[in-house]
Amino acid sequence: MPNPSRSDVIKPEVRGLSAYTLKHFDAGVKLDQNENPYELPIDLKREVVDRVLRRPWGRYPEFVPAGVIHTLSKFTGWPSDGILVGNGSNELIQASLTVTLGPGRKLAVPQPTFTLYKLMATALQAQVAEILLDAERLTYDVDRLLEASRTSEVVVVCAPNNPTGNLLERAALVALLKNAKGLVLVDEAYHEFSGQTAFSLLADHRNLVVLRTFSKAMAMAGLRFGYMMAHPEVAREVYKSKLPYNVNIFTLTAAELVIERRSLLNQAIADLIRERERVFTELQKRAAVHAFPSQANFILMKTASPARQLFDALYSRGVLVRDVSSYPLLERCLRVSIGTPEENDRFLAALDQALENENGST
Amino acid sequence: MPNPSRSDVIKPEVRGLSAYTLKHFDAGVKLDQNENPYELPIDLKREVVDRVLRRPWGRYPEFVPAGVIHTLSKFTGWPSDGILVGNGSNELIQASLTVTLGPGRKLAVPQPTFTLYKLMATALQAQVAEILLDAERLTYDVDRLLEASRTSEVVVVCAPNNPTGNLLERAALVALLKNAKGLVLVDEAYHEFSGQTAFSLLADHRNLVVLRTFSKAMAMAGLRFGYMMAHPEVAREVYKSKLPYNVNIFTLTAAELVIERRSLLNQAIADLIRERERVFTELQKRAAVHAFPSQANFILMKTASPARQLFDALYSRGVLVRDVSSYPLLERCLRVSIGTPEENDRFLAALDQALENENGST
Repeated sequence: MPNPSRSDVIKPEVRGLSAYTLKHFDAGVKLDQNENPYELPIDLKREVVDRVLRRPWGRYPEFVPAGVIHTLSKFTGWPSDGILVGNGSNELIQASLTVTLGPGRKLAVPQPTFTLYKLMATALQAQVAEILLDAERLTYDVDRLLEASRTSEVVVVCAPNNPTGNLLERAALVALLKNAKGLVLVDEAYHEFSGQTAFSLLADHRNLVVLRTFSKAMAMAGLRFGYMMAHPEVAREVYKSKLPYNVNIFTLTAAELVIERRSLLNQAIADLIRERERVFTELQKRAAVHAFPSQANFILMKTASPARQLFDALYSRGVLVRDVSSYPLLERCLRVSIGTPEENDRFLAALDQALENENGST
Repeated sequence: MPNPSRSDVIKPEVRGLSAYTLKHFDAGVKLDQNENPYELPIDLKREVVDRVLRRPWGRYPEFVPAGVIHTLSKFTGWPSDGILVGNGSNELIQASLTVTLGPGRKLAVPQPTFTLYKLMATALQAQVAEILLDAERLTYDVDRLLEASRTSEVVVVCAPNNPTGNLLERAALVALLKNAKGLVLVDEAYHEFSGQTAFSLLADHRNLVVLRTFSKAMAMAGLRFGYMMAHPEVAREVYKSKLPYNVNIFTLTAAELVIERRSLLNQAIADLIRERERVFTELQKRAAVHAFPSQANFILMKTASPARQLFDALYSRGVLVRDVSSYPLLERCLRVSIGTPEENDRFLAALDQALENENGST
C-alpha cells in the first residue's frame, strides 16, 4: 500500500524554489550570456581534438587531474594542493556551499547578483541574508556586507558583479576578509575585463576562496571549466563535495592547452574592453537610457520604458540581450554583452530604432 | 581582527568525512574501474569531433539539451519531461539527494555498496541507515531494507550492486516501491550486463527514480554522461539542484550519436557477459578463492590470504584489480573487472602464479 506521507519527501525549501532557467531565443546578434564572441583559433581546436582522439574514451579521467592542476599552478603561482577544478565554476560554488551551509547556517550575498548562490543555499536549507546594492548607483553596500559577514558562514561577492558590472574596492574586500566569521567567496568570472583580482590576498587570508571560469574571457563556455584557489586546508574540505571525475577528458585537454597559450586570448580581451568603453560612451549619448559603468564584458542599462518592451523591440531587430528586470532594484534594466564591433554597432542601431519608435508612438 | 570562530564554518559532518579517492596505479592490464575495454569505433569518434569542430566552443550549451533528451526519450520510450541528463550519473545522484536530504531526514542504503551515496548524504547532514547484506552470500537483506524504507526519505539500491554483483529481485523491488515512505533510487550503472531493469515499473510508481550511466557498457567513462528517468513531477524538483549547463557540447554530441548507434555496442556487451561467465567458471575451479555470482561486468572474489597480499601479487604481475577489503563484510575481497579475453587470461594466469607462490611460501 502506498505510503500516504510520500509527497513530503522533497524538502519544502526546494519545493518553494523556482528553477534557474533561461528561455531560448534565436538571434543574429547574441548578446545575452556574456560569452566571448571570438572563438579560439581553429588550429588550437584541431590540436585539442587530435589529442582527444589519441586518448581512450572508455577509461575514466585521472582521479585528480594532475596535468591541468599543475599547469594552473604554474600559470597562477598558487600551490597545486590549493587548486580544485570543476565542471564550470558553478560546480565549485556548489561544493563550497555544500560543505559549509545547512539549517542554522547563513550565506550573506549582495543583491542583485548571480542567481545561483541564493538558489543553492536555499536548497541546502541555509538562511540567506540579502544585502541590497545602493539603489541609485548599484554599488556594494560595504557597511551592511561587513555587518552580515560577522554572523555568516559564507559571504559571496561576485567581482565584478553580474549583472551590474561594479567591483568591490580592494580595501573593502580586505575589511571583509578580516571581519568575516567564515569563508569569503570571490567569484572572479569576469576578472579579466576588470584588471583586478583578489589573488594577491590569498596568501594572507585563509578564509578567501577565489573562483574563476573559462566560460567568459577564455572562450570556453561550451566546454565547461572552472577552477578554485584557496588555502589547501579549505580546498581539502571543499574537495569532499566535488564529484569524482567531474571534468571530462575533452575539457581537461582543452583547458590545459588554453592555459599554456593564454596569450592567444589577450587581443580578444583587449578588444572587448575597448568595445565596452565605446559602447558605454555611445549609451551615455542616449538620453532615453542610463548606462552603469562596468568592469566586465557587459553593460547594464536602465530604460525609461518598460524593460520588456525594449527587449522585444531589440529582439524583433535581431538583437538578443538579457532582460534582468525581475531582479531586485532592476525593474527597468536590460543587460547587454559586449560583442564584436559589428555586433555592437548592430545593437546600437537597433536601440536607436527602438527608442525612436517608442518616441514616435507616444 | 580575524574572527576567532572562523575555524567552525566547515560542517562537522564534512570534517569527519574521508574523501572519496582512488590511488593511481599504472598497469598493463587495468581491471579496477569496471570500464568497457572495447573502445567506440574510430569512425564514430571522428564523427563526434567533426561535429564538435563545427559548433562554437565559446557559446554555452543549450539550457536544456533538447536534442539528446529527445534521443533518449525515443530510445527508452520515457517522456522527455521525465528525463534529466548529468555530468555522469553521480551528478544526478547528488541532485536527487540534495532535494530530499538534510538534518532530520534519512537515507537507507545497503552496505557494502557504491561509496558515494553515504558520502553525499553525510555531507547533507542526513541520517544514514546502513542495511548490511547477508554476510555469507552478500545478497540484499530485503526485510530490513523494507523496514528502513518506511521511515526514510530516500532508499538507494544499486542493481546490480557494486562491488558484489548481485541483483535485487523484481518482487522485492516492487515491495520496496510500495512500502517506501519516499523515493527509491535504482542505480542501474551495470544493468546492460544483467538483462534486468526497473524501467517497466516507472509508469506505475511515481516514487521510482532510475539512474543510468554511459561510463560502463556504453564505453564513455572519459566523457562523463549519465541520465535519470523519473516521474516528471519528481524530475522537476531534482532539476532544481542540477547545475545549469552541466553537460558540455562534446559529451552531448557523443552521447547523442552513441544512443542512435546503440547497436554498435551490442557485440562488446555480449562478449563481456560471456567472458564474465568464463572467468567465473575458471575462478570456481580455484579452491583458494571464492567467487560470488555476478550480473555485472566484474566479479567479487574472497581469498584465503589477506586481500592486500593478493592485490600486490597480482599488481607485481601487471594486473590491476580493486582492493575492496576496507568495505564492510569484504575483509578478504578483491573486485576484478571483466576485460578482453586476453586480459582475463592474463589475470587468471597472474592469479595462479600468485596463489602458487603463496602456497610455496607457507
